[in-house]
Amino acid sequence: MQGKLNILGMGPGDPELVTRKAERLLRSHSIFAYFAKKGEKGHARHIAQEFITNTHQELRFEYPITTEIPHKHIEYKQALQQFYDQSAHHIQHHLDQGETVNLLCEGDPLLYGSAMYILERLSPTYTTEIVPGICAMNGCWSAAKLPIVKYEQTLTVIPATLPLEQLTDKLYHSDSVVIMKIGRHLAKVKSALQTTDLLNKAVYIERGTQLNQRILPMTELTQEHAPYFSLILITG
Amino acid sequence: MQGKLNILGMGPGDPELVTRKAERLLRSHSIFAYFAKKGEKGHARHIAQEFITNTHQELRFEYPITTEIPHKHIEYKQALQQFYDQSAHHIQHHLDQGETVNLLCEGDPLLYGSAMYILERLSPTYTTEIVPGICAMNGCWSAAKLPIVKYEQTLTVIPATLPLEQLTDKLYHSDSVVIMKIGRHLAKVKSALQTTDLLNKAVYIERGTQLNQRILPMTELTQEHAPYFSLILITG
Repeated sequence: MQGKLNILGMGPGDPELVTRKAERLLRSHSIFAYFAKKGEKGHARHIAQEFITNTHQELRFEYPITTEIPHKHIEYKQALQQFYDQSAHHIQHHLDQGETVNLLCEGDPLLYGSAMYILERLSPTYTTEIVPGICAMNGCWSAAKLPIVKYEQTLTVIPATLPLEQLTDKLYHSDSVVIMKIGRHLAKVKSALQTTDLLNKAVYIERGTQLNQRILPMTELTQEHAPYFSLILITG
Repeated sequence: MQGKLNILGMGPGDPELVTRKAERLLRSHSIFAYFAKKGEKGHARHIAQEFITNTHQELRFEYPITTEIPHKHIEYKQALQQFYDQSAHHIQHHLDQGETVNLLCEGDPLLYGSAMYILERLSPTYTTEIVPGICAMNGCWSAAKLPIVKYEQTLTVIPATLPLEQLTDKLYHSDSVVIMKIGRHLAKVKSALQTTDLLNKAVYIERGTQLNQRILPMTELTQEHAPYFSLILITG
């Protein structure tokens, strides 16, 4: 008998924003897996802390590279392909023994989540279930008390990793906007917001729903770099 | 001492997709409020069923109109304004007595949710907290196992209530798309998808995460009308 792969959204950071379902599954099965950057605990692992007991078995998948090589470089793509192949293989080993594996993901697994690369490798052969999670953006607009879309407004979620020209073009064609993955792209994003005359409407949120959360208007932001867990909200 | 208003996202339908925080707050305070259409139980109320005991006090706010008058008509707007004024007033009455009120919302409160109209009326005067919820779209793309955005793709959330021309224009300028609020707008949405050559990529989901969930490619959809709880996903 084959085991089952559950892909669990762990939400934006506050462990209370985990769903009842993710909590139940995590407590019911002893094997869990997660992705983490070198030298870091892993955000999903951190959120899961209070559900983990010493009967749990942990599969830690550490990204071989993060920003050392540009993402569009063939070397980066090959390294990541191989990494996801190996991670899927580790999980597969347990599934073949009839065990259930919970793969933990920050936010929602299918919105820019690495779990989708495991899903595409294993779902053709194994039973998989995906438990949605609260996205970082939902946590942030709730913390900022910003109604993000109403009536006939559209919402556009834009990754800050886009080139300046495309970023600016997207902003011109949007009502309400979430800009994700700010990190090292803060200066470029600021420039796009200035060009589109949106700087005054933009709200910057760092580590939303986490203990050291910061919320401030973009016009008051003086720092030049943003942490990985930061995003910008603009209401249409 | 004033009470506090908690606005709780109850998720897309499955009660297990409620967050631990929403569950705790709902169980800890006896007064809860919700919006419902005439003759219907109310979706948020339905999701909350298993958390409600006979010590709970229920404030039901019934929309005076839904589709009898066009949404852009002044009469519709006035009726809704008055309705939200009265609903806020009811809640206020309890807050002034030092009680905590939980306002329950389907999905996420600040993504097209009616709760934002209560928030704007009460947050200037009372302590408010918003607990984000899993959006219908997150529940749907998880159920369909569709990675909605990856790499540098953008996600655009479009209400089906937009006029055909705007709907078509938005689709032309998007990568991945969620079309919400399908309901009576199915024929128009189909036409926009045909024009933009997206019909083959569109997935229709009815009552996502609920017991009678249906998922099928738009090309196989023969019905002319969709229920309120339906949406369309297109991956970029």
